[in-house]
Amino acid sequence: MRKLINAPGDVVSDALRGLAAAHPSLRVDATGGTVVRADAPRTGKVALVSGGGSGHEPLHAGFVGPGMLDAAAPGQVFTSPVPDQIIAATMAVDGGAGVLHIVKNYTGDVMNFRMAAELAEDEDIEVVPVVVDDDVAVEDSTFTAGRRGTGATLFVEKIAGARAEEGADLAAVAAVAREVNERSRSFGVALSPCTVPAAGAPTFELADGEMELGIGIHGEPGRERVEAGSATEIVDAALSAIDADLPLAGEELLVLVNGMGGTPLIEQYVAYAAVADWLGGHGATVVRCLVGDYVTSLEMAGVMVSACRLTPDLTRLWDAPVETPALRWGR
Amino acid sequence: MRKLINAPGDVVSDALRGLAAAHPSLRVDATGGTVVRADAPRTGKVALVSGGGSGHEPLHAGFVGPGMLDAAAPGQVFTSPVPDQIIAATMAVDGGAGVLHIVKNYTGDVMNFRMAAELAEDEDIEVVPVVVDDDVAVEDSTFTAGRRGTGATLFVEKIAGARAEEGADLAAVAAVAREVNERSRSFGVALSPCTVPAAGAPTFELADGEMELGIGIHGEPGRERVEAGSATEIVDAALSAIDADLPLAGEELLVLVNGMGGTPLIEQYVAYAAVADWLGGHGATVVRCLVGDYVTSLEMAGVMVSACRLTPDLTRLWDAPVETPALRWGR
Repeated sequence: MRKLINAPGDVVSDALRGLAAAHPSLRVDATGGTVVRADAPRTGKVALVSGGGSGHEPLHAGFVGPGMLDAAAPGQVFTSPVPDQIIAATMAVDGGAGVLHIVKNYTGDVMNFRMAAELAEDEDIEVVPVVVDDDVAVEDSTFTAGRRGTGATLFVEKIAGARAEEGADLAAVAAVAREVNERSRSFGVALSPCTVPAAGAPTFELADGEMELGIGIHGEPGRERVEAGSATEIVDAALSAIDADLPLAGEELLVLVNGMGGTPLIEQYVAYAAVADWLGGHGATVVRCLVGDYVTSLEMAGVMVSACRLTPDLTRLWDAPVETPALRWGR
Repeated sequence: MRKLINAPGDVVSDALRGLAAAHPSLRVDATGGTVVRADAPRTGKVALVSGGGSGHEPLHAGFVGPGMLDAAAPGQVFTSPVPDQIIAATMAVDGGAGVLHIVKNYTGDVMNFRMAAELAEDEDIEVVPVVVDDDVAVEDSTFTAGRRGTGATLFVEKIAGARAEEGADLAAVAAVAREVNERSRSFGVALSPCTVPAAGAPTFELADGEMELGIGIHGEPGRERVEAGSATEIVDAALSAIDADLPLAGEELLVLVNGMGGTPLIEQYVAYAAVADWLGGHGATVVRCLVGDYVTSLEMAGVMVSACRLTPDLTRLWDAPVETPALRWGR
């Protein structure tokens, strides 16, 4: 293992201590496993809570702040947060207008968020869940019934966060979150595996010169393993898969070219050039884009492409001010 | 090679095409190798130009924009930009108030920036160079006479950029750039090597379970190779080396915990927790910090710690608005 850690069992709590030290704008419970906006609860504002296994940073804790999430519940590495964490985060941010749970579609996450929502009901906190399932690679996977939730989670959190910030009620915030999920698709490619610290060995084997098309964010299998292609071929595979499911021609798009953790930024921009060429050649227009490591899989090498068909209102919400550790603009 | 590229010889020009497509705020010459603020030249403003080999993204092109650099001249991977690139960038941004060249201390960079400065003189453009040499690991290295320029380059570019933005003249901008360099130190540790695409093989060998203390940003040798330690031990090695050269006790610090490209963000936060503990235990105060991949070495795993002894004026300049692809706040 080439890991910058102390004990494997302390990775998440150590990282949360680091997050707390680096970002006074967050209130972090490093042992309980919650990350909350320091100014929470905000009376009258719909609150947004997300969470999931750690190892995907900056998702989700790096997206906590004005204009995005009110709280995150990070589980152990690639492990769902437990209901106690989720209900603690929910209670910490409820300002009386209800709480949106943004849940990536993994069996454990869905189950634990549901249990937390039941606990919230006992506390008279209204919770609405929105499940993100944007990954077109596989219909069911190792960890899911149905599609996996991946890169578009960022789109949902940003846009629903903006809608909540401008005073929408819980039904309206949930509606826009679902709308973004329905209008978004993702597809990822791995060039190397990654190693969960507690396991100490790679999650899967991938020979130098091979790539896994349709990888998830936990090293779970994708569509097929093939000879590693060029950036142009990789992008073509990703965008063809997305386009087959959600036609992109004639659309105005929000695009994320997302490094999986071990792919340098220079290569992500090589991929973005191919994305821009592909979309231009297929009659789609990129209106907004992000290039960087946002929804990662530890140190896995590879890239994920996510696209969302924008509307003027979604573009406006995307552009709204945001102030989090990993995304900030407009303030 | 697990690379997301097309041809090895096209990596830099492809990445620059991607940068151009992603960031309309930049004017990019992907074949000539320059990245310029779209609104340059700004009449009457001192302009800042930096550059160096590619493979360290987001440095430098990701720091071009209001409040930071006016232009960058990215060379081939780990290769100095040629004088033609540097003079082209210089002429593109000169607004009549002179141009600051921010040069990392590598023999090729220093030589090529000097040649470009001579060419600028022929064009009646006043150029002042500032050489960054913050790396305490080695006195001379494979590629330098004297110390290497590494993580503090970001501090110099941000703070001098803010000073230029507020209307200071060339002498004053150069003075604050030198002041930041003199008040800053860095130390890096590698847990894996990296591979230059054109070479196709790792720049050095590092067995699993070993680490190189005092690594540079090109895989050039550091101080010593030892058994890989814990995050706490690695941070102690880095901060002890910095503190031995520039005492930190009683200081208010700007700290960068910089991922080298292949180390996940969760591990960088584990390192930041150790940094905060170490500095607190040694009587230093972190006033501002950054955690992330800012000055990278392709996909090398590892971390660099940089610290700058702040003054109230330097803190004010650090906090000033900045709007670049990789750093943005306050606007």
